Parts: sequence; C-alpha cells; structure tokens
Amino acid sequence: MLQPLFYPESIAVLGASRTPGKVGHDIIANLLASGYGGRIIPVNPAASEVLGLPCLREIKQAEQKTDLCIIALPSALVLEAVRACLDAQAGAITVISSGFKETGVEGAELEHRIAELCQSHKVPLLGPNCLGLINTENRMNASFASRMPQPGCISVISQSGAICTALLDLAAARHTGIAKMVSIGNKADLNEGDLLIALAGDAQTKVIIAYLEDITCGDEFVKAATEASSKKPVIILKSGTTVAGQKAASSHTGVLAGAEIAYGAAFMRSGVIRADNFEALADYGALFAMQPLPKGKRVLIITNAGGPGTMAADAVEKSGMTVATLDRNTASALRQKLPLAASIGNPIDVLGDAEPDRYVAALEAAQEDEAVDAVIVILTPQAMTKPAETARAIAGCHKGDKPVVVAFMGGADVMPGREELVAAGLPDYPSPERAVAALKAMVEYAAWRKRPPRMVARFPVNRRRVERIITRRQRTNRLQIGEVKAKSILQAYGFQIPQGYLASNVGEAMEIAERIGYPVAMKIVSPDIIHKSDLGGVRLNVTSSEAVADAYDLMMLRISQRAPEAWIEGIYVEKMLSRGLEVIIGMSRDPQFGPMLMFGLGGIFVEVMKDVTFYLAPITNEEAIQMLMSTRSYEILKGKRGHKGVDLAGIANGLQRISQLTTDFPQIAELDINPFIVGESGTEPVVADARMTLQAPGVTR
Amino acid sequence: MLQPLFYPESIAVLGASRTPGKVGHDIIANLLASGYGGRIIPVNPAASEVLGLPCLREIKQAEQKTDLCIIALPSALVLEAVRACLDAQAGAITVISSGFKETGVEGAELEHRIAELCQSHKVPLLGPNCLGLINTENRMNASFASRMPQPGCISVISQSGAICTALLDLAAARHTGIAKMVSIGNKADLNEGDLLIALAGDAQTKVIIAYLEDITCGDEFVKAATEASSKKPVIILKSGTTVAGQKAASSHTGVLAGAEIAYGAAFMRSGVIRADNFEALADYGALFAMQPLPKGKRVLIITNAGGPGTMAADAVEKSGMTVATLDRNTASALRQKLPLAASIGNPIDVLGDAEPDRYVAALEAAQEDEAVDAVIVILTPQAMTKPAETARAIAGCHKGDKPVVVAFMGGADVMPGREELVAAGLPDYPSPERAVAALKAMVEYAAWRKRPPRMVARFPVNRRRVERIITRRQRTNRLQIGEVKAKSILQAYGFQIPQGYLASNVGEAMEIAERIGYPVAMKIVSPDIIHKSDLGGVRLNVTSSEAVADAYDLMMLRISQRAPEAWIEGIYVEKMLSRGLEVIIGMSRDPQFGPMLMFGLGGIFVEVMKDVTFYLAPITNEEAIQMLMSTRSYEILKGKRGHKGVDLAGIANGLQRISQLTTDFPQIAELDINPFIVGESGTEPVVADARMTLQAPGVTR
Repeated sequence: MLQPLFYPESIAVLGASRTPGKVGHDIIANLLASGYGGRIIPVNPAASEVLGLPCLREIKQAEQKTDLCIIALPSALVLEAVRACLDAQAGAITVISSGFKETGVEGAELEHRIAELCQSHKVPLLGPNCLGLINTENRMNASFASRMPQPGCISVISQSGAICTALLDLAAARHTGIAKMVSIGNKADLNEGDLLIALAGDAQTKVIIAYLEDITCGDEFVKAATEASSKKPVIILKSGTTVAGQKAASSHTGVLAGAEIAYGAAFMRSGVIRADNFEALADYGALFAMQPLPKGKRVLIITNAGGPGTMAADAVEKSGMTVATLDRNTASALRQKLPLAASIGNPIDVLGDAEPDRYVAALEAAQEDEAVDAVIVILTPQAMTKPAETARAIAGCHKGDKPVVVAFMGGADVMPGREELVAAGLPDYPSPERAVAALKAMVEYAAWRKRPPRMVARFPVNRRRVERIITRRQRTNRLQIGEVKAKSILQAYGFQIPQGYLASNVGEAMEIAERIGYPVAMKIVSPDIIHKSDLGGVRLNVTSSEAVADAYDLMMLRISQRAPEAWIEGIYVEKMLSRGLEVIIGMSRDPQFGPMLMFGLGGIFVEVMKDVTFYLAPITNEEAIQMLMSTRSYEILKGKRGHKGVDLAGIANGLQRISQLTTDFPQIAELDINPFIVGESGTEPVVADARMTLQAPGVTR
Repeated sequence: MLQPLFYPESIAVLGASRTPGKVGHDIIANLLASGYGGRIIPVNPAASEVLGLPCLREIKQAEQKTDLCIIALPSALVLEAVRACLDAQAGAITVISSGFKETGVEGAELEHRIAELCQSHKVPLLGPNCLGLINTENRMNASFASRMPQPGCISVISQSGAICTALLDLAAARHTGIAKMVSIGNKADLNEGDLLIALAGDAQTKVIIAYLEDITCGDEFVKAATEASSKKPVIILKSGTTVAGQKAASSHTGVLAGAEIAYGAAFMRSGVIRADNFEALADYGALFAMQPLPKGKRVLIITNAGGPGTMAADAVEKSGMTVATLDRNTASALRQKLPLAASIGNPIDVLGDAEPDRYVAALEAAQEDEAVDAVIVILTPQAMTKPAETARAIAGCHKGDKPVVVAFMGGADVMPGREELVAAGLPDYPSPERAVAALKAMVEYAAWRKRPPRMVARFPVNRRRVERIITRRQRTNRLQIGEVKAKSILQAYGFQIPQGYLASNVGEAMEIAERIGYPVAMKIVSPDIIHKSDLGGVRLNVTSSEAVADAYDLMMLRISQRAPEAWIEGIYVEKMLSRGLEVIIGMSRDPQFGPMLMFGLGGIFVEVMKDVTFYLAPITNEEAIQMLMSTRSYEILKGKRGHKGVDLAGIANGLQRISQLTTDFPQIAELDINPFIVGESGTEPVVADARMTLQAPGVTR
C-alpha cells in the first residue's frame, strides 16, 4: 500500500522554491543530490523552473498521475493543495508544512479535515509537520534533511524530525547504513503502527528503530508491533516517561499504574526492545543490524587487559546474562596457542602485548565452543597493540553464527580499528558496558522470538449475571461497586468467595451467623462508604450470637454518627476466612492499552515497596506465572527457610479470570481484589475483599 | 616528598635499549619526544649511546645524584638495580618491569624485598609492573605510552596500564587536557592513597580521576581520599564489583555486607564520586575540570527540539535533581526575545530553526535567574542549525558562575561545534542522559563539600565490663556470643534490655517469673545452639507460674532430644516486650574498611527485599539518620496513612552506640541486634535478641 510513498516513479513538490534554505527548495535539491532516478515535478504558480527543472503552475497540469505529492506550502493553503493532489490521482501525499495540531484547536481541525479527505480517497498521508522520508534503495531523499545516509539495513521511524537528523548525523559518523527513514510528524493518517507493518514487510529493512513521544492507538500499536517484532527486531526509544500525567484513580491498582507502566507492559507484550536513551537506540540498532541472534545467554569475554575484562564480566553478571565457562577441551587447545601468562578463563586475557594472532586464537576457540553463545572482544591501545590489524583479523575469523561484539576502548588510536570493524559488520562500542547492554537486548529479544505460542484460556463463566449487574449500575449511575456486588461478579467468574449474606436487621444477622457458623465477619454495605473500616464498619472474628447482635447495633450507631448521610443497605455477614498469605490482584484500564492486570503481595509490599508487576490483558497462564516471578517478593510466594510456599497456580488462575472478566466487560474501569487470600499449594484462594469502578455509560475505554 | 618523581631534574633509565619497541628504548624516545628538559641518562653495560644520548655502563658512574631512576630490566635483575640506584642516591624509583606479585609467591617475595629496601632508604618507589608516569607541566613522558597528552587540569591514577593508555587515547580524541598521569602497577610502595595526597596538593591538578581494582589499606585510603576530596573532586572507577568473594558470615549483617558494599560505604564517607563505567570516568572528569560546582540542584534545559528536551527532563527527574522553574520576570523578559511559538518553560524550546542568537537569549536568561543552579543546552542538527556558530555563541555568553553542560546530538555535522565547545571549556556529551549523569555527580559532590563537620558522639559506657567478657571468651576460644552475654555487653554500652535472669532449674525459673512479672519469655541458653527457636528453645508469652514450669521442663526435654550434645547453661527468663516495630541494627567488620554498620527493617524487608543500608563506623548522628532515610522502608518508620511513626532518634542512637562499641573493640567481628524493638516517638527502643561473633585471638580486623 505504501509503494507510492517509498518507491514513487514521480514526485511532485507543491511549494517548490528557488530560494535555498526554503523547504520547497531544499527537498528538490536533496532529491537531485541523492540521485533519485524518477521524475521530479516542481509546482509553483510563480516560477517556470526550479533548480533546472521545468515547473508546473498547478499539479493538475501534470500529464500523468503523480505517485508522490510533497506539500511544502503555508498551512492555510494545504487543504486546497491536498484536494488538488487527490484530483490529480496522487498515489501518496506527504505534508511537510507545520501549523496544524501542534498549534492548537484550529490547526487540529484543519489537520483532521485533511486526513479525512485523504482517507476517503484511500490515499496515504504522511505528516503534517514532518521532515519527509528517505529511501536509500531508490536513492530518494524526499526530506529537507540534507544528509543522505549510506545504504544499509536499519530503518528509522521518528516522531521528531530533530531526532531523525541527529540519527542521520550519528549514522554518518559511525558509518552505519540506513534502509528507510520516515519522519511521521503529527501522524494525522499514517502512524507508527502503519509504518511498523510496512517496514516489517520491507525486504531492505532488517532492523526497525523508532523514536516515539506518544502512540496513536494502543490496540493497533500492540498488534502492529507484535507482527513486526515477530519478523525483525523493533527497538523503540519512548520519551516523556516521568512527566506522564497521573490520572485520578480509586483503586490500589489504579494508583500504581501509570502511562509509563502501560508502555512498558505494551512493549513487553509486543516483543519491542526498549532503548532507554538516544545512544542505546543507535547502539542496539547497530548490533541487531550486523550480528545474528544468540542461542542462549552465555557470554565469553576476550581482552588484552585485566581491568576492562573484569568490567565486562561485572556488567554481564549484573545484566542477568551468564559469564560462560569454556569447555575443557577448548580451554586446553587454546592453552597451546597463547603464552603461558595468558589467562584462559573467562575473561580470556590475551595479555597487553597481544598481536592479532592471539585475538584470532581466542575468538576461534570461543566460536567453536558449544558452551558459548556470544562473544565480547575488548581491546585497549597498549604499546604493542595494532588496532587496525587486530580489527581486520577479528573480522577475518568471524564466522557469523554467534554474535560477536567489540569494545575498542580509547579514542584517536583505536579509531582506524573501529572503522574496519564496522565495515566488516562487527559493531564496536566505546566501553565494555555498552557492548554488554546491547548484547543483553539481543538475548532478551532472542528469548521472546522463541516464546511458546500464546494460548489464552477461556473459563466457563456466568457472563449474563455480570452483564445484568453492570447494566443496572450504569443505568442508575452507581459506578462504585462495593464489596458485596463485586464479590458476586467475581463469583460469576469462578472466584471462590466466603459464604455470606446481607442482613437488614439484627435478627437476620444472628440467623445468618448461626446458619453459616462462627466465627463470622460483619461489614457495612453502603454505596456511599468506600473505606469501611475507617468508620467502624468492619468487625472480624465475631464468635457468638450475642456478639453478632452487639456488633450489629454498635456498627449501625457508629455509622449513623460518622456518616449520617450514607445510604445503608445493611450489614454483610460472612464466614471468617482461614489464614493465608494476602496478595492483591487487580486491573486498571489504561486509556491507550486497555486492561492492565496487576499483581503484588499485600500491605507494605504494595504500598511501600511498590513491588508490583503489570501485564496487558488478555493474559496467558505462562504470562501470569511470569508476573508472579517478576516481583522481588516471589521468594515469599514460593516458600523460604522452612515455610511452605503458596498455591502459585491459584494466583495465576485468578489473574486469568480477571483478564477474561475485564476483556469481556470494557465497562469495568478498575478492579481490586485486596486481599486475595492464598493458602498452601493445592488449596483454592479466596476473595476476602474486592471493589470495582465502572466507566460512566458511553465510555468504552 | 614526590618532587623527584614528578619534577626530576635528571632521569636515568636502567635497561636503556637501542631497539624500538623495547620498553627501555621507548621510554627514552618518549622523554625526548615530549620535550622533557632535564638530563636523560641511559644506563646499559652493553651500549655507548642510546638515541643519541651518551650511555652509562652502570648507574654509579653518574657524576651527580639522579632524581628519578626508571628500571626497565628483567625482573631477576631488578633487586640489584634498585640497590645500585639507592647507592647512587636516587630521589625516586620507578620499576616498569613485570614479573612480580602478579606471577605468584616468588614474585611477591621479590617485590616485597624491593619495597622494603626503598622504604628503609625513604625513597619512594612507583610500580613494579607499571606503565610509568606523565607530567605535562614539565613535558615529561616517563612512560612507555607513546601518546603525550595536551596539558590540562585532570590527573589520572590507574592500577591498570591499559586503562591509562585507553584514557590517554580518549583524551586525545576529546581534546581533554591532562596534568599528571600515574600508573601505579602493583603498588609495592606508593599506592592510591599516597598519590591522592600528592595530587591533592598539586597546583596543576583540579580533578583526580582514578581506576582501581583493589585498595591497599582501607583506613589509609579513607583518610587520604577524604583529604583529597575536601580539596578537589576525586572520581573513581572501581572494577571487580560482582566477583567479590562472599565471606562466611554468621549474622544477617555479615551475610548482606560484601566487599562491594564496603567500597560503596568507603567512597560515600570519603566524598569520592563513583563512576560506574569507563565512559562515566571521562564524562565526569571533563565536567569537573571545566565547570564550577552548582549551588543547588535546580536544572534548566534549553533545546531546539521537543523530544530531546523531554528526555533531558526525564533524566533530571529520575536522577533526583529538580527541573527548575524560571522566575516570572526572567520568563517574561525572555518572551520578548524568542519567537511566539517558542516554549518558555523548562525545557525552553528555542525551536528547530533556532540560530545562535536564540540560544544566547535563553542561556543568558538562565544564567541570570536565581532559581536556576545549572543549565543543560541541547542541540540537534536541523536544517537551519549552525553547530559551530552556536557553540561559539554559547561559549561567548557563558559567564562561568553556574555549570553549563552541553549535549550536541548527532555525529559528523555537530562535530565542529563539539570541538569549539571543549576548547571554550564547555563539556559536551553525545546525549542528554550523559550530560545529566555528569551533572548529577557534580550536584552530589557539591552537597558533600557543604556537609556539616563530622561530630562523632562519645557516650559514657562501661567499657571495662565488656573488656572482661571479651577477654575471657577469647582466652577460652568461645567466639560465638549468645543472647544473654550479648545483651549484657549491649547493656554496658547503654542499650535498654528487658529485665531477665538465668534460671538453672524449674524453681528458679518460677521465682524469676514471679519477681519480674508476667508475661515472660523463656529462652534456652547454650553456646552450642545458634537457632534457638528451630529446636524448641524459645517460648513467648508465658503467663503463669504453672506455665513457666511446664515450659521449662518441656524445653529441657526437647533440647535433650534434639541437641543431646549441647552444653546447656540454663533457661533465660525475661520480661515480655510490649509491641513495636522490629528493626535490625548490626555490624560486620570488613577486612579492608573495618566496622560497617547496618540498618534495615526486620523480617522480610531484610531477608527478601534486601532493603538495608551500610555506613562505615564511626558514625555521626546525621549519618545515622541518613542511614534510616536511605531505606525504601523509611516511609514506614516515619509513619504513614494514620499510623504513627517510630522513634527515629532511638534507632540513630543505637547505631551510634554500636559504632562506639565496635570501634572500641576490634575483637568483635560481627554483631546483630535482631530484632531491635522500636516504639513511638519518645519511647526507648529495646534489644529483643542479639548475637555477636568475636575474632579468633590475635586477629585484629
């Protein structure tokens, strides 16, 4: 679909100009300079030629249809120009001009009309407010960035034109090749998802790197990113993390979940590799572009100096990868080839006076060894060191079945080596730590690619019952669902809840208690009271009929004093739960990515330590288990120092049931089961307390 | 003292050689090439001249005494050569040769003899197994690193010659100047501490950066580093962190404390700025060398693109610094100078088409504004951007009273700008994140420099009593001190312990319980039993005389069954404690740095969450409070959601008392007060259980 955008046979530039520095001039100059072979058609009513090319007064004068129309006119003229392009049967349109959504409501309105117009004609629109695009395959620099990159296999998507130019500049300095670069600007029509799909299908692109400030549509993004990541690595730098607005939330889960966490969950689900900063984006991109994925995470380090070798080993260990142990045979074979003082461990220290041959011996050994998944080669510029020769030797013996990354440490002296390495497809980093970070990203992505197929379980549930409760509540605008109703919703989705009934007077309370057996818990039921226990609305461990009566009357008295306005439905009398570990499971609906499931250990773990994990729904059983394992308190769950562990499967099951419930009912905005009481392995966990919040009617996310 | 090393008027090279590539040749060549103006005296029995210089057969032929003798001979000849140098009244000796401690026991023995010899003559010895040293002030490259750096104010200490050369190479590429560079090698005599002191007193040195793999003597290091840091910034990259050996430890504190934590504590105490990786060492060094310390931590960001501005703001927030708010007057004055579309917040966005003048307007405003402590200037290479001119303009309006750091993002296009910046004393970083990290290091160091004077409190204690207990235990080799004796030691140091007595039979136990009042706790006392409760040796909440008798007999029965070999002293009967928060305070003696104090919240916080802090003893009250505040669980200590906080002063006091105890008694290897029960503010905390381990007699650390 994006063929006319990336591979146009003709390009019209509306707003073509003869003045250097003007966008309408520079784009044409860039197209010419880059060697674009198609027709270039300047359009400007006031000029007869631009840069030696004949100029049309209007696009409708074009004799044939134009594949790509680039509009570089003042924003007020853009709508008209788009219409003219569509009339002239443009295959794709790029609006470079700014003055749209980024300037306020009027601009947004104009932008919206342009996008609608293009969409109604099924013509893809890039921009507005963008830099344009570059394709090195057909030598097309259809942007106003003057630097045409060398051809390569990394494609770039960027929401910021400045990041595009900075990346192009960095790529030039690092001799990195680019396949395609797309500046998506305001994303009125084509957004990151569309381009991920397009580039995933592009034969020239081996790696996609992207800079994003926001995401147009969460669902679409997750789908597109998953599809793209399943074919090739997608590395994203997402800015604006800490400034993410806090939304008002009434549940624990809601308070803990923020936009930043939602992006993390969406990236994890989609297999997106996250770059934490600008350098990491380029660092990771280079490694994925040049080297194969590793089979595992066992890393071997080769160095000509002890200190940097230790730094690398430290970094490998901290990253969660493993410092490989050489096979005994490999080690003894290598021993023959290196001087006696060399260390044949991991790191392999080829010593300060190492010439290229020692690096070759060590790298060959590492590549042959089955116990090694990836290799880091470190060089420091010492008296005898020959960076360029060593680089060439490393490149010469690099087999290409395992990733090899290089860290030539230093500056001026190692620079020739660095260039040779990159030319030979070996990524070089200025420090061991950056080499390790890039390798770590690769190990994680390789693991994601090998993940089992996602199988989301569907439990048999009573969906009708939940539908009825929710519909009634939304109709009457009672959006806070308290404990009793929340529990019946959860029960309809297969959760075990303690036996209990609502009592409207003392007699009923006593009767219920007798029927279900002591001890019982008693809790006030009122749509107006959220923090029941703060107002004296909860009594636990009530052990006799008289105590039930006392508790009932006292609770009613206290509530009438402390919350005289509250409408009281009655008092809920339920069987006291046996002891167990208190955990919290919940859901908060992210405006972008929909239901995010939360898990954490109860009390201080959640409140003080923030030791919680989030995952996008729907969730598989493996992912639910993964959620438990990614908390630091997992040690407690699985048992420690003589204490038995708890029923992990029960928690995972609960998370999947919430996943199903909140996927079935987009009306649920937030849900908290807190605490969810979990017993020993084999027992079924029980919902001790729960709460939900519904969306206002009509809101679907 | 190190004058002859750094400023020799004559340098003899023993092992001078005519063969390029040999160390004895290259050092002389480097001395000549660097423009060293003193006398150079090659010494070699087999040569009459080296590199055009007349060569002595032996050092004793020298007519005058030689300030610096550099020995580059095979290790077997070094002892004899050192002796000859000392006889010839050398002022300082550098042994370049390897083949010493790093090769094993024999080498270590040889090295030790050489060091002793020099020390007995009071002649400083650098090395062996080192690269030599460089001083740009007197143009002396007395090393075999061929690259002579440009003069500057950063001095380098490195335990690895390879890191020296890598840093020199990096400095050349980044146009960074160096004052002195010292490769300390095996540190047989001169170590990091000596050189910190020397460079702290060196007028050319403004910043010290060091790469260390170990530290020769913890106490000396802390003293030297504190002295140096009090004069100028000391930045250290310490490798070998995760591979630090785990020592056998019996206390909680001992298990949690490792060499890595001890280094962290020592650096914190000494004001040392820690670099986490090779690039950070150079990054931080450059900033400290070029810019003044900030007065506070409020950072203003100036950018010509939104995305990178947001990245910088994110990084500032995450680092713990503050995104500054411009003063209203500054903001409105700036508004006049920038286009309407520019954003006058923080970041200040001067827009993509910004020419140098807009950067100047923004930087001038930021420098004038009292609400700004530091400035980060970001530039991305866009169509209209003029990196070199902008760099020159920034440099031109930089006033120098607040730190200004720059991030020119990109590569080839921004490079000319980068060079202009560095030439003008403005450090430039390739990404906003690295600029922020360097600034953060500076903010922390500035705060350390402004710390109040350290006042370690001395509490009145009964030192004699503790001395008696410890001496007796060491004499009889009973090094594990159980609860009862540990409590009496702590009581002698002013800790409150519950009232309690040792009972040797049932009758005594009942009598004690009656006397101190119910409820009581009962605990088995045996030097052979460490985990009392695991064997049924603890009963809590015993509430009557009969229950005391039952508990006594049952406990004795169980212990006789479960630990028949254990020698039983009796059963300790003590007053049950009222409830409170359980914390752990303890001490583990680090082999390098001596007593390290530990604080953490009890139970899972320590065991699972590892939420603990360490500090070197002796500790001040401020530092003790700081220890509490640096745990994540501090929120619980100070009270949260209606819960009252605990007596923070009581915990801080306890830590100071342990500090005094373990400083007074180096015989104590480990100490754990677990739990230390802390009540509400104003109450005194109580030692609920405690344990100590003594050093074997004769061991002092």
